[in-house]
Amino acid sequence: MNDIKVGLIGFGNIGAGVVKLLRENAELIRGKVGAGIILKRIADRDIVKDRGVVVDPGVLTTDVNDIFDDPEISVVIELVGGYEPAKSFVLKAIEKGKHIVTANKALLALHGEDIYAAAARMNVEVQFEAAVGGGIPVLSAIKGNMAANNFGSVFGIMNGTCNYILTRMTQEGADFSDVLKAAQELGYAEPDPTFDIEGVDTAHKLAILVTLCFGTRIDFNAIHTEGISRISGLDVKFARDFGYRIKLLAIGKLIDGQVEARVHPTMIPLHNPMADVNGVFNAIRLTGDFVGAVMFYGRGAGQDPTASAIVGDLIGLARGMVAGAGRTVAPLGLLDGKVLNLPVKPMADIVSKYMLRFSARDLPGVLGTIASALGNHGISIESMVQTAHDADDNSPVPIVIMTHEAVEGSIQAALTEIDQLDFICEKTSFIRIEDNLE
Amino acid sequence: MNDIKVGLIGFGNIGAGVVKLLRENAELIRGKVGAGIILKRIADRDIVKDRGVVVDPGVLTTDVNDIFDDPEISVVIELVGGYEPAKSFVLKAIEKGKHIVTANKALLALHGEDIYAAAARMNVEVQFEAAVGGGIPVLSAIKGNMAANNFGSVFGIMNGTCNYILTRMTQEGADFSDVLKAAQELGYAEPDPTFDIEGVDTAHKLAILVTLCFGTRIDFNAIHTEGISRISGLDVKFARDFGYRIKLLAIGKLIDGQVEARVHPTMIPLHNPMADVNGVFNAIRLTGDFVGAVMFYGRGAGQDPTASAIVGDLIGLARGMVAGAGRTVAPLGLLDGKVLNLPVKPMADIVSKYMLRFSARDLPGVLGTIASALGNHGISIESMVQTAHDADDNSPVPIVIMTHEAVEGSIQAALTEIDQLDFICEKTSFIRIEDNLE
Repeated sequence: MNDIKVGLIGFGNIGAGVVKLLRENAELIRGKVGAGIILKRIADRDIVKDRGVVVDPGVLTTDVNDIFDDPEISVVIELVGGYEPAKSFVLKAIEKGKHIVTANKALLALHGEDIYAAAARMNVEVQFEAAVGGGIPVLSAIKGNMAANNFGSVFGIMNGTCNYILTRMTQEGADFSDVLKAAQELGYAEPDPTFDIEGVDTAHKLAILVTLCFGTRIDFNAIHTEGISRISGLDVKFARDFGYRIKLLAIGKLIDGQVEARVHPTMIPLHNPMADVNGVFNAIRLTGDFVGAVMFYGRGAGQDPTASAIVGDLIGLARGMVAGAGRTVAPLGLLDGKVLNLPVKPMADIVSKYMLRFSARDLPGVLGTIASALGNHGISIESMVQTAHDADDNSPVPIVIMTHEAVEGSIQAALTEIDQLDFICEKTSFIRIEDNLE
Repeated sequence: MNDIKVGLIGFGNIGAGVVKLLRENAELIRGKVGAGIILKRIADRDIVKDRGVVVDPGVLTTDVNDIFDDPEISVVIELVGGYEPAKSFVLKAIEKGKHIVTANKALLALHGEDIYAAAARMNVEVQFEAAVGGGIPVLSAIKGNMAANNFGSVFGIMNGTCNYILTRMTQEGADFSDVLKAAQELGYAEPDPTFDIEGVDTAHKLAILVTLCFGTRIDFNAIHTEGISRISGLDVKFARDFGYRIKLLAIGKLIDGQVEARVHPTMIPLHNPMADVNGVFNAIRLTGDFVGAVMFYGRGAGQDPTASAIVGDLIGLARGMVAGAGRTVAPLGLLDGKVLNLPVKPMADIVSKYMLRFSARDLPGVLGTIASALGNHGISIESMVQTAHDADDNSPVPIVIMTHEAVEGSIQAALTEIDQLDFICEKTSFIRIEDNLE
């Protein structure tokens, strides 16, 4: 069998990792594929900068057409990132009959459908294991060995920046802004961290997971997305007192033909394996109707793990070519035309348990007023903590209430009402609880 | 594309699960494959017994040759279990040019090589995801998306009976024999539990993992195998005091071209996600040179999860057939002829930390004598606990010592020496510690 020739567009940190992996483990890969995987051309606007790996100058080009127009190149790796020109590059490569490997979650979350449709027309594969969970092979598992299942839920801790910040807040009792600053100094958070800490990156990954697990298109804007910037050290402390840890969780559920898709800070029981997913590690947990609960855990980002996923995709494609097959798996693991358009449940309709933290003046009747307001909205209380307070101290007291399952709309209505009361000193904090992670 | 016709040999609990899954999710599977997967014949010695699923009587047969001789059947599922006649059935099916799906870990651990060689000659695939970790798709991941990695280690909690017993011992402070009895009454342990509790089942799974991860043959008898029957409630308690939990762990490592392969009770740090793998759940953790540490967690046994893995294998085979491919992946994910014969490190040469629990009479000089004996064998002490004791109480005291890293041979020599001392009241308990599970 002839070697498989590959073109790479975007020679950044991840691209350099791919170069390194294909070189260092070339013999191992050849022994698993039956052919070599050769990076024939690398295109980038800047081919002068030192990428930390040595590349034959004849491989580098500033003209992507050197990749599109090379009939020997059968697979294109897109590592440009973002929407454009990444989308145009991918569509052009597909049009030229080349298989695609990409790590571009934003592109797939918003424009996946166009790309999959183009791939179907040209009978090429689109592989994107690196788009979710770095090196964790979760997408291959969903499309592959777990494909016999109807999935009911998918949960993910999928952003290293948020998880690093929440882990340090938990371990040190520190506040959000202090830890963010430290994370930025250490390079664990971007100078502008909005995309990570406000949950957008996690929502991109959730969009991909929801589509794969439930076999449905999802409008990215229909995903309710909250970040972690409103979480205080006090929230972390009370969560722990109640036996929980706070994580930025992506939640996808399929209930009665309606999809739930949401990203928000979530309390997870302390003794669940997901509660011990710390720092830059990611975890994704799914439930299928036959396989039951399955969890995947590993490094969710970084040069080497991401390169592992990308080259893993290349190996899968190369094996198919060696075996003489055309496209063996459609991008979503589903035949074209089988993708559904399931409705997304409005956020106001979701059901959850909540931890509510009120900041109130210590006056007679406060607790009764709050409890009545909750009761009027059909919210019942599971437990409550009010911290002791000196009689002559005028500072607000925290009152923390754990609810039974309640409807989100009722919670929001009750909090809007309560937050207008005179004795309430600041906006009430609420954190949703996910108890059913067996 | 024509439907894929499958034959099933062995109509027990798992076989019934496969029937149920192929029926209940038939449309889902068709949408992912582009063809139906049809169970054409089921062979068993007993085709009268109620298996809890309805099957067309024309499907059932007592003659396995009805499967071998049917040219329409392209895949055979072997669920007979054990060595014979399972091995003969598998080889016969391969000889007839049929792909194999099996859950038979004992067969593959001891006779895998013969089977893989036969499959290579006939250019058919052998898939066995269900042999390790029930529904957890770990073998597909090793052979598939993580294939670009050189693996350095693999750890597994892979026996539900042992993990159930150890979990209850931990949660209730109970002793081994009491919990075993309860587990037998609940059906979580076999009437003769030897195979599970002495680690043999775990060792079968480790043999398969070692072969896949390190690309090497391994003599099953070279795997050091200890069970959990010697673990006492006191060991569990002291382990917890030092911040650990005891699990029956399968350990595979590749260090300087030598393989470590061992199954024994092992102390795992409390805050590692593997420490929270409880009851009948399994976990497998690997490290690759690029992907880093990855962990898989899920239900390691049972009708439904095992059926998920088996049908997942069928889907993979069926997709290849629909795409017009021959064999796309060799059984070990490696080309034939690429499997190594790496040496297995003798148990006496392994290096580990240990918890040693001595039972000694409370006499002056006891601790010094023990410490000197350890020191003479080059074993250094990290920490020590001796429980308080009434002066007039003559019962033995437990002395617990945590060692730094030491060579197994030295530990065994030191304990042999110490156990002959007059003041030692019972055989010293030792438990190996695995700290490096980041």
